[in-house]
Amino acid sequence: PDLEAKAGAEARNSQLTKPDGSLGRLEEIGIWYASWRGEARPRIAQPQVAVFAGNHGVTARGVSAFPAEVTVQMVANFEHGGAAINQLARNAGAIMSIHPIELDRPTADFTIAPAMSEAECVAALKVGWDAVDQQSDLLVVGEMGIGNTTSAAAIANALFGGTAADWVGRGTGVDDAGLKIKEEVCAAGVALHGGKAPLEILASLGGREVAAMAGGIARARMLRIPVILDGFICCAAAATLEKAVPGALDHCLAGHVSAEAAHPAVLRAIGKEPLLSMGLRLGEGSGAGLAMPLVKAAVECLSGMATFAEAGVSGK
Amino acid sequence: PDLEAKAGAEARNSQLTKPDGSLGRLEEIGIWYASWRGEARPRIAQPQVAVFAGNHGVTARGVSAFPAEVTVQMVANFEHGGAAINQLARNAGAIMSIHPIELDRPTADFTIAPAMSEAECVAALKVGWDAVDQQSDLLVVGEMGIGNTTSAAAIANALFGGTAADWVGRGTGVDDAGLKIKEEVCAAGVALHGGKAPLEILASLGGREVAAMAGGIARARMLRIPVILDGFICCAAAATLEKAVPGALDHCLAGHVSAEAAHPAVLRAIGKEPLLSMGLRLGEGSGAGLAMPLVKAAVECLSGMATFAEAGVSGK
Repeated sequence: PDLEAKAGAEARNSQLTKPDGSLGRLEEIGIWYASWRGEARPRIAQPQVAVFAGNHGVTARGVSAFPAEVTVQMVANFEHGGAAINQLARNAGAIMSIHPIELDRPTADFTIAPAMSEAECVAALKVGWDAVDQQSDLLVVGEMGIGNTTSAAAIANALFGGTAADWVGRGTGVDDAGLKIKEEVCAAGVALHGGKAPLEILASLGGREVAAMAGGIARARMLRIPVILDGFICCAAAATLEKAVPGALDHCLAGHVSAEAAHPAVLRAIGKEPLLSMGLRLGEGSGAGLAMPLVKAAVECLSGMATFAEAGVSGK
Repeated sequence: PDLEAKAGAEARNSQLTKPDGSLGRLEEIGIWYASWRGEARPRIAQPQVAVFAGNHGVTARGVSAFPAEVTVQMVANFEHGGAAINQLARNAGAIMSIHPIELDRPTADFTIAPAMSEAECVAALKVGWDAVDQQSDLLVVGEMGIGNTTSAAAIANALFGGTAADWVGRGTGVDDAGLKIKEEVCAAGVALHGGKAPLEILASLGGREVAAMAGGIARARMLRIPVILDGFICCAAAATLEKAVPGALDHCLAGHVSAEAAHPAVLRAIGKEPLLSMGLRLGEGSGAGLAMPLVKAAVECLSGMATFAEAGVSGK
């Protein structure tokens, strides 16, 4: 972050026509945004939502309430504008891009072998890296991948310890039997790959869309583009970066806390306080897309409001 | 609400390309909105923010951290686009109107006499009533009035009981001595007017901008325009309607819970769960304006998403 821009934004914020601190968290968000953009009075003109899709070998184990072909069907739905994230991106004035990644080639079943080889994981990271528009000034990364809450639970379990039951949840809506299977699959994956380094965990237990999200978040850091994190899967992807390089998510804030059981625990583990808590559990970037207008609002207030002196308003 | 439109929206919601319930609270908001608009597939095309301003006799008692002339200065700031609510209304795509009400004639000091006569209160209610654009499809009412957290605290105390200390807070930022004065003023007002009927309490302890907000909310009900309630003062104004006619706020949802100490208690008393909790305590309609994009997002999802059949996506 740019400390000069931060100091400039703080000075400006303290002179705006409002009682000190009365915009609450909007004030810190505005200042945080300014510090990453290197401007004391920034604007958000080109927000971007990038959605990645991948298929998972573990779906053969019965970990999802939906069949694996839904991944490719939902990609078509994204392309035709019919999914929730299409509406939420438009609502936020964001450009949306869709990145299906080798959907006809699911990852390996991670209970048997690494989900991805190193080369496959790097290729997926690069899809995310390349997806970030250099002109963007606010980024959301979203995902679609039947089976990927199991992948995210295994990543979180491997990174943060505990048992599979601590990290597994109902995803799109599995029943009790499905939940039991998810726990067994997660535990088996962690038994096989749990001791590895964070980015190896990403390759071994993640998926192509999960790796792409990590690549997008890392690329945004290089470009000083602030990121709004989405739900459980996005935060599990992001957590591999934070675990590899503490502070790697300083350019990110948490858009929401989802209804997926272990999302609050992942947020605590990466030190993020969510903006929204509205019971979403859809993925696609939906919770982060919903939060985009809040971040825009924070920046509009910081940069658009008049100061006491400009407006001729008496202070205390 | 229109039960046919509600049933139509519920049916549509259940067929959209997402797992059941996965949009959480957005789903209920969309259905609620549809039921008030009488359309199963509504759109929000013309949101409105109406800001009312009034002056308060009790400011002479030293209840505010800011001098009374700030009210008229902030009205000028609203008119020039420099206040927080200007940025937040623009961020939400809302038209904003500003309604200063007899600023050179403050209400009476309510510790001595009713703040407004019945005729004065009716005139202020009518300002709010007339301010609502019949073409609006989502309304926020905001306020500016140095001293009005004291007025709102007295209203809440009179409507809901307890002691002055339960309802008084720091407003724009009074110190401990100022807080003590607010308590005394509130207690004196409630001692004099507390036993009256809800709309008499509005006249006796309210202010012109407070009455105007109540008028706007009531008018929106007649026009079936859903309303997002703002903070402590807006909710105190709204509470007089709810207390007079239970259910009078069924067309309203709570945009946020503010940092003003007694706002959570007023929200509980009127049975509203806030959408946001971001520590705002500014008034002007700011918290409700911040929440407008969330309500728009809910309606966009309900009305814009494809169904499973339309998109050719497999169900469970």
